[in-house]
Amino acid sequence: METLRWRDGVLELLDQTKLPLAVEYVICPDYEAVARAIRTMVVRGAPAIGAAAAFGLALAALAQETNQREQFFAKLNEAARILAETRPTAVNLFWAIRRVMDKLNQGVELAVPGLKALALEEAKIIHQEDIEMNRRMGQFGAQLVPQEANILTHCNAGALATAGYGTALGVIRAAQEAGKNIHVYADETRPLLQGARLTAWELMQDNIPVTLITDNMAGYLMRKGKVDFIVVGADRITANGDVANKIGTYSVAVLAKENKVPFYVAAPLSTIDLDLPSGDDIIIEERDPQEVLEVFGQRVAPEGVKVFNPAFDITPHYLIDGIITDMGIVRAPYKENLKKLFT
Amino acid sequence: METLRWRDGVLELLDQTKLPLAVEYVICPDYEAVARAIRTMVVRGAPAIGAAAAFGLALAALAQETNQREQFFAKLNEAARILAETRPTAVNLFWAIRRVMDKLNQGVELAVPGLKALALEEAKIIHQEDIEMNRRMGQFGAQLVPQEANILTHCNAGALATAGYGTALGVIRAAQEAGKNIHVYADETRPLLQGARLTAWELMQDNIPVTLITDNMAGYLMRKGKVDFIVVGADRITANGDVANKIGTYSVAVLAKENKVPFYVAAPLSTIDLDLPSGDDIIIEERDPQEVLEVFGQRVAPEGVKVFNPAFDITPHYLIDGIITDMGIVRAPYKENLKKLFT
Repeated sequence: METLRWRDGVLELLDQTKLPLAVEYVICPDYEAVARAIRTMVVRGAPAIGAAAAFGLALAALAQETNQREQFFAKLNEAARILAETRPTAVNLFWAIRRVMDKLNQGVELAVPGLKALALEEAKIIHQEDIEMNRRMGQFGAQLVPQEANILTHCNAGALATAGYGTALGVIRAAQEAGKNIHVYADETRPLLQGARLTAWELMQDNIPVTLITDNMAGYLMRKGKVDFIVVGADRITANGDVANKIGTYSVAVLAKENKVPFYVAAPLSTIDLDLPSGDDIIIEERDPQEVLEVFGQRVAPEGVKVFNPAFDITPHYLIDGIITDMGIVRAPYKENLKKLFT
Repeated sequence: METLRWRDGVLELLDQTKLPLAVEYVICPDYEAVARAIRTMVVRGAPAIGAAAAFGLALAALAQETNQREQFFAKLNEAARILAETRPTAVNLFWAIRRVMDKLNQGVELAVPGLKALALEEAKIIHQEDIEMNRRMGQFGAQLVPQEANILTHCNAGALATAGYGTALGVIRAAQEAGKNIHVYADETRPLLQGARLTAWELMQDNIPVTLITDNMAGYLMRKGKVDFIVVGADRITANGDVANKIGTYSVAVLAKENKVPFYVAAPLSTIDLDLPSGDDIIIEERDPQEVLEVFGQRVAPEGVKVFNPAFDITPHYLIDGIITDMGIVRAPYKENLKKLFT
């Protein structure tokens, strides 16, 4: 099952709003369709929306009829702006857009046809690299997993959140491939139930034993000594090691600290944003109240009730035992050690 | 809106599985119907199921055709056993059953018609006392609430969980009646969404400002300094002050400690079980996986996924700032101070 694929000149996205009830692809013939798919979470997960945005830019490039470089760049910049406005929190989106645009800007000697080819090539490289990074992350992370382990994860940081293999679920996959005897507890992750709908589904496809729980059961399991290891993904990691990730991650981290359960974050370098000093500087997206008020269109709360619906929270660095990256495991002091990754 | 009412010789229960989408009463003409209603959570909340069970015994008494005391007691004991087997965690159920049975056993001079009247009278007293206890609890608890306060609560410990007014929501109601400027954050409380369906609905009926959140957002709010006070109900409190309450309560308490937010439990003396030394001795009910797999009949997870569904968790006494009872506020050391309440 591919999260996103380039086929016959269009981007095809596995529709993650419909899983696991239906397995369908959304066809994106232009960058506007990609922007819409990111906004409505047809595609979600920081690395996956980065790759999708890169293909969106490639679509914007390929669609152009002009042969003038200036007009080409004007339209590309407009597409980049619209793609960047889809979601505010995950930095991979901006990272991927910048990477494609930088590549094009470096192509000083190229005419428009060459630039079009370059945009598509860069999107394909980002997509392919993401899978490779996830496999490296998996190798590093798997070493941390005990031989027999109940692993808790929150939301979906799996193949569905990336170009493939996954970040947090990549660590879990690699641990299983390394012959470890693992079992996963998946937080269902309200409101959009990515844990129930996506993580449970993904793990079942790979025959990795999984038990589904509601988010508020994780603490009980930890207190009962039923969780040996926790790994989650990230949408943005700031210079001090603070982590923005799906709402509820902070609560899991606090419960892990209280119960002395190792808490790790798995994310590629593209998720690390050294431009922001701390998590306080990250914009937290607030989404439509309907996500809380309804489940698959089924209303669950009284008419007219007020809702607060932040999509992410910040886990402060001091609650994190380590960040598993594609360049190795980073530990405190994060400020120094994250910087070293980039030098 | 009455949670439970005795009318024309039957018990009528507001169907809490259907709220807020429909407001309907379930008619219980016999004790078996009451047992079924408790088991399926038509009526829920520790004090409410206690009162319902008491009326169930009254129905069992009134239905008897015998005039022999021995036969009468044999059948009543059977009804008591069946009612007691409906749910294992909340102690109020056993407390109410024992109270009615003790009362009948004390009626040594009474013939069967007198015993029937006594059973019904005792059920009515339990029902009425519960409302009065909640009002007293409210008075004690309201003093703890700051003049301007964002109050977080979990699950529903309101009028719907009791004979009326509520335990935790009784404290909130009393704070508002005392002129405090309050606003409530209601955890939706998966899997059965008592917070979304019942607490939000109840507070809206009383024009108490309420904002609905998913369970995994409570930590984020606390970290942002948006929660000034937390109050929850209880299903059983052991001799050392450990509290069994709706799954997720423990997580809220740990997050409260981490963020230095006052965490209180409101419960009548009938919820305190001095026979059990600690929370480790409480049986935690595990319920049907379907509750997690479906929301109002809408499937939300892959077919065949394994589920763990504990209905309650234990909050250890050291995470609790105080227990608000109808006899006053109890603080640590709980072992001594809870015992004093009963002497």
